[in-house]
Amino acid sequence: MSLSMYAATVPPLRLMLKNLSAVISKAEAHCEARKIDPNAFLVSRLYPDMLAFTRQVQIATDNAKGAAARLANVEIPKFEDNEASFADLQARLDKTVAFLDTLTEAQFEGADTRTITLQLRDRTREFSGADYLTTWANPNFFFHVTTAYALLRHGGVEIGKTDYLAGSLLGK
Amino acid sequence: MSLSMYAATVPPLRLMLKNLSAVISKAEAHCEARKIDPNAFLVSRLYPDMLAFTRQVQIATDNAKGAAARLANVEIPKFEDNEASFADLQARLDKTVAFLDTLTEAQFEGADTRTITLQLRDRTREFSGADYLTTWANPNFFFHVTTAYALLRHGGVEIGKTDYLAGSLLGK
Repeated sequence: MSLSMYAATVPPLRLMLKNLSAVISKAEAHCEARKIDPNAFLVSRLYPDMLAFTRQVQIATDNAKGAAARLANVEIPKFEDNEASFADLQARLDKTVAFLDTLTEAQFEGADTRTITLQLRDRTREFSGADYLTTWANPNFFFHVTTAYALLRHGGVEIGKTDYLAGSLLGK
Repeated sequence: MSLSMYAATVPPLRLMLKNLSAVISKAEAHCEARKIDPNAFLVSRLYPDMLAFTRQVQIATDNAKGAAARLANVEIPKFEDNEASFADLQARLDKTVAFLDTLTEAQFEGADTRTITLQLRDRTREFSGADYLTTWANPNFFFHVTTAYALLRHGGVEIGKTDYLAGSLLGK
């Protein structure tokens, strides 16, 4: 009658990181086929004061490893934020998936009621683990995954909802 | 040690529908202050063959009511898809929230293992309720909420992550 915190966190994040990787592979192929400088996508923004594509992918992976690590009560892996190519971003997605794969169901015991404290820009915010996942981590993660997708789509890469949901369609 | 299917579904969807409503209110105010025809936003797209803003909001609400109704095992409310203004879209968001507010914890008992069958374009897809929520309903819902946000942001409405997460920041 309920969802374990592990099941609510790790497999869905893993799935969407894999989907984002597949979407980025299409962008790489698109650039190669059309002799487009990949940097045109990497620095692209939907508005001048929005974050560029590379940052969207970096933050999506930060959201994923941050959420999973906080709920599993383990240290959050630190990445350097020095990605400069699609291949670098793919490696970052792979590293994030590899980190998720180290986590176990047992580490998420009690995660729903564990207090999660976040340092926001101007204050701290406390959540129960359950509220943290459903009202903070998920909305943030999907925001950046979708914005990364939107930047590629806006730039003409031939991707669709079936790419965004590729793994979900396959039932993986 | 776990999350009830109700808690994983209804409050997070409700929160994000309210956040989207707040974001749309900012777009309404933006149009009024600058004498912009709201239709410029309602028909806006990130790419010519993507769905326009109005459809993104309609589908986000469809995802929310569809997911909650399927998991609660009640009939999905039908809306007419005839919204032609920001006010109409706000009314649709309100109707969706009102529907979510009719659902009870008890209706979600057993929802994690209930079989959910979806008719996709070319085939049917079966999920357990838990997989349906985490690998299908959530990714779809957040996709359309974020794309609606992105269209307004791309069009110059002064909104930011704090608007997208307004209710989450307040702890509502």
